[in-house]
Amino acid sequence: MKLPLTGIIPPMVTPLRGRDELDTAGLERLVEHVLAGGVSGLFLLGTTGEGPSLSYRLRRELVERTCRQARGRVAVLVGITDTAFVESVPLARHAAEAGAQAVVLAPPYYLPEGQPELQEYLDHLVPELPLPLFLYNMPALTKVSFEIPTLRRAMDEPRIVGLKDSSGNMIYFHRALALLEHRPDWSLLIGPEELLADALFAGGHGGVNGGANLFPKLYVRLWEAARAGEISRARELHTLIMRVSESLYQIGRHPSAIIKGIKCALNCLGVCDDFMAEPFHRFRAEERQRVEKELVKIEAEIARLGVELNVKGN
Amino acid sequence: MKLPLTGIIPPMVTPLRGRDELDTAGLERLVEHVLAGGVSGLFLLGTTGEGPSLSYRLRRELVERTCRQARGRVAVLVGITDTAFVESVPLARHAAEAGAQAVVLAPPYYLPEGQPELQEYLDHLVPELPLPLFLYNMPALTKVSFEIPTLRRAMDEPRIVGLKDSSGNMIYFHRALALLEHRPDWSLLIGPEELLADALFAGGHGGVNGGANLFPKLYVRLWEAARAGEISRARELHTLIMRVSESLYQIGRHPSAIIKGIKCALNCLGVCDDFMAEPFHRFRAEERQRVEKELVKIEAEIARLGVELNVKGN
Amino acid sequence: MKLPLTGIIPPMVTPLRGRDELDTAGLERLVEHVLAGGVSGLFLLGTTGEGPSLSYRLRRELVERTCRQARGRVAVLVGITDTAFVESVPLARHAAEAGAQAVVLAPPYYLPEGQPELQEYLDHLVPELPLPLFLYNMPALTKVSFEIPTLRRAMDEPRIVGLKDSSGNMIYFHRALALLEHRPDWSLLIGPEELLADALFAGGHGGVNGGANLFPKLYVRLWEAARAGEISRARELHTLIMRVSESLYQIGRHPSAIIKGIKCALNCLGVCDDFMAEPFHRFRAEERQRVEKELVKIEAEIARLGVELNVKGN
Amino acid sequence: MKLPLTGIIPPMVTPLRGRDELDTAGLERLVEHVLAGGVSGLFLLGTTGEGPSLSYRLRRELVERTCRQARGRVAVLVGITDTAFVESVPLARHAAEAGAQAVVLAPPYYLPEGQPELQEYLDHLVPELPLPLFLYNMPALTKVSFEIPTLRRAMDEPRIVGLKDSSGNMIYFHRALALLEHRPDWSLLIGPEELLADALFAGGHGGVNGGANLFPKLYVRLWEAARAGEISRARELHTLIMRVSESLYQIGRHPSAIIKGIKCALNCLGVCDDFMAEPFHRFRAEERQRVEKELVKIEAEIARLGVELNVKGN
Repeated sequence: MKLPLTGIIPPMVTPLRGRDELDTAGLERLVEHVLAGGVSGLFLLGTTGEGPSLSYRLRRELVERTCRQARGRVAVLVGITDTAFVESVPLARHAAEAGAQAVVLAPPYYLPEGQPELQEYLDHLVPELPLPLFLYNMPALTKVSFEIPTLRRAMDEPRIVGLKDSSGNMIYFHRALALLEHRPDWSLLIGPEELLADALFAGGHGGVNGGANLFPKLYVRLWEAARAGEISRARELHTLIMRVSESLYQIGRHPSAIIKGIKCALNCLGVCDDFMAEPFHRFRAEERQRVEKELVKIEAEIARLGVELNVKGN
Repeated sequence: MKLPLTGIIPPMVTPLRGRDELDTAGLERLVEHVLAGGVSGLFLLGTTGEGPSLSYRLRRELVERTCRQARGRVAVLVGITDTAFVESVPLARHAAEAGAQAVVLAPPYYLPEGQPELQEYLDHLVPELPLPLFLYNMPALTKVSFEIPTLRRAMDEPRIVGLKDSSGNMIYFHRALALLEHRPDWSLLIGPEELLADALFAGGHGGVNGGANLFPKLYVRLWEAARAGEISRARELHTLIMRVSESLYQIGRHPSAIIKGIKCALNCLGVCDDFMAEPFHRFRAEERQRVEKELVKIEAEIARLGVELNVKGN
Repeated sequence: MKLPLTGIIPPMVTPLRGRDELDTAGLERLVEHVLAGGVSGLFLLGTTGEGPSLSYRLRRELVERTCRQARGRVAVLVGITDTAFVESVPLARHAAEAGAQAVVLAPPYYLPEGQPELQEYLDHLVPELPLPLFLYNMPALTKVSFEIPTLRRAMDEPRIVGLKDSSGNMIYFHRALALLEHRPDWSLLIGPEELLADALFAGGHGGVNGGANLFPKLYVRLWEAARAGEISRARELHTLIMRVSESLYQIGRHPSAIIKGIKCALNCLGVCDDFMAEPFHRFRAEERQRVEKELVKIEAEIARLGVELNVKGN
Repeated sequence: MKLPLTGIIPPMVTPLRGRDELDTAGLERLVEHVLAGGVSGLFLLGTTGEGPSLSYRLRRELVERTCRQARGRVAVLVGITDTAFVESVPLARHAAEAGAQAVVLAPPYYLPEGQPELQEYLDHLVPELPLPLFLYNMPALTKVSFEIPTLRRAMDEPRIVGLKDSSGNMIYFHRALALLEHRPDWSLLIGPEELLADALFAGGHGGVNGGANLFPKLYVRLWEAARAGEISRARELHTLIMRVSESLYQIGRHPSAIIKGIKCALNCLGVCDDFMAEPFHRFRAEERQRVEKELVKIEAEIARLGVELNVKGN
């Protein structure tokens, strides 16, 4: 894995056929689908990947199959976030054995840690990890942020190599960027795709954006345009990504709506099953029809912008 | 287990000797300590029990040893809260096999559910459970409440038999009480010990209060006084419980301070080890000295109120 | 004014006929209505009184007319909360001249103060006030609490004589109660009527409860029962107050629903106009019909409990 | 006033000499200082201007003097946010008479409105206003956002001409930008200066940034660079603005720290008095020394970037 890691790294959905059963054919198609779109890595078992809802057994199977399918073509990053330290470590070891390139960690998310507790936790955990570590800032779900002084301190640990920021707080992102002088090899990656253009113009390295499961090339093209300083092209692509977000992620009323929307759309596109791990459930017929309708419009707009769709799941 | 369950049911700390190792002798002493105090049940693997920080293996060992030690003298309630449905079910089955009387469930606590999603989750989970179920309302940590209409609907399911409310919101508790006409067998139990007196005078059935690990008889006496309508006696005992809370739970600065304070005090009393599961750590010497000093004062006040201390851990 | 102030002090709605016009006849009827119910004071220009939505001119007129109508029969407390210090002081002076007995102050509610700033603010304001001061804790609306150490410090100022706590947080209320040993003349009053019984059994002095605009005797009877240690009678009355809250305060969907419900019900009872100051508006026909229906049921229940209704507005 | 309004519009601090007394000489210097920096407008009585802490009398004096000093060289925008509708309208009328070009309004900020209530409020208020209106989105302080559908609806009212967004939420800002197709004359202005570069690259029209009180040319240069598509120059200037924010706004511990920092720095620069309206107070000697030290560093960096400082207050 070349550092800093740049480009688009989709937070992969986990294709499922049942409560504890992978959709293995769908997984293969999904990996090929996003790789064909030019992504630079795969991030497994994050929020979009429903990581915390899956059994450890299934998580391991997912990591093994994905690494096998990826065949080293891009870096595989594996989420090891867990409320139990003693479960995170074996997940990381398994990821290394399966051939992953890095692990990704958000704070344990039940009882919220103070920052000194979070620092001590990293001090104890990192030496046990066989792979480089990306931090994952997701305070809306973990209730705790890696605050800026904690990030600064984490930079003194060479095995921590970057941050995925899903806070949605661009002021935080700018503060994190200002720290990069201390670690030029660090990657700063943005979670929410609505902020991808902002993050790239500001100097961020890439995006870990849910919509890249669906239209990987759209996000990769935005990354390329921003890199090349093509502001108006970037703004055009960004506007379309806003449309994806406005149309596909707001069909349900609850926070799960984003994942349901992506999985449903992937299923409509023939890529993989849309089964959701409990406590969530796939869209019913009515919502699915709305997804189908929106997909037609979005595909037309993508084509109009001259971005190849690259969707032929089967 | 007689329903409604009444009295004091301590949310037991989990005595540990290491990251994945029980303090088995401490566990035996702790069980005997609280039983000698007159408690009506034991609640394992809640927030105070550091449930989410423990490996499944250790959780199972804890349940087995506690049930064995309790020998049916009181009901054992086992927390099965988990972000993964497919892990909660086997935890519940194991609890039944080990001889527990009920299981306790908070909402899956990573991506927050909408209320319809939470209802559907209960609809799917309850039929898989071999034991009666208590709901556990803990929105500060799970980000989701069992809202009043959801509670009302849960009452139509005979296998759901009560609620432990740790919201700290007494208006919610009063609303839940008003629902009891639909299920006279339901138990309404209060989490925060600072609200135990309020809850009992209002008609609640009992408390699941962290401090009952330390001074079980103090909490049992308050329960008895409130039951008997002895307002001024109850107020006296309540005032002392406020002192426990003010002195022992506010030594650290983070939310973990309560558990650290209880574990440290139990250790000072000779009951069990004060090792904490990651990402938390036991108090250091300075905080421990403050705990010791506060303990002396509290014990004197408890004695002054004529409550037997019942602390001879070893 | 006898200290500590005890009993029920309704946070009076402000009867309006237009955006900047009092319903003066309604105001007279409202004052007589609540006085006939046995209340111990009147609190003007709080949240229920729409204080911040009113012009200073109208606020002054309200204070003058109410003091004149009250004729010293009970204490009149006047809200002087304002974002501008230089406006709070003249409001307090006017209240003194009009014959009020005390003023009531929540923190300035735009840019939130830190606790040291809040303390300094009190240090500067209190010497300018010609009347004793009650603090008003309302963090949901002011974004700032009078934290416990700030309360403790305020007790060293003899002109601060009590606290109205509308936080809804009973743990806070218990902590405030524990401070009373330092100032036996302080009054601790509870805002949310759903917590009135809890507060009284715990040793609180009284309630400032919106529903006492409608059914003053119901709240006064609960106060008396709690004082007399009649737990089951108190519980009965409390249950009915919960019904008032569940039925009349939840007809609208926004935080304004409580005030709208009380004003609408007062209008149905013939007491006063239900005009609301902008940005809010009275209930429309459909909601009003629901209020009327609920009123019939509640009046029947009040009668069944043997509480005189005392509603003859005209 | 040419619409859409573009460029930098400083949210002017209000120079004070006492609790209810303007620093009139300082006000003149401040106006000249920012005009010399090339700003396109002046925004009075916002959060930075301590609007809600000032008496209506002083607010009127400020508006009159500022309009007189500005002599039509740039647009003057006047904040009329108030909890009382009947006070906002005369403030707007006075602004028109004094020669201001527009008024600016955040939601009434005591009891939070639901969106339909907020819409109705605008429907009633706008016809009473003699000047075009900018909306001011500041949910951290008002507790209520102008949600996207409310913005969309506001666009149907031709007298509403723009939005100042101080939410700090760039996703919201992008959604608001997407609405501009309905009103090409609308201005979208960003509040937090840390987000100015993001907002401009995304297509926003300008910034209402506190730091432009101090170094107006720095913010104007960033605006020009972004307009011209000079990404690396813009990034350089943005980095320096981040330094201003990190150094001058974080010296105090409370939300007031930003205003205190700006006023203190303006005083160090000889522009105006640093008196703060209650409940806040100017920095004491220790904090002031830190401000002085940081100013030296920032001025050096500004000079290094070739931006004229334009600070000769006296």
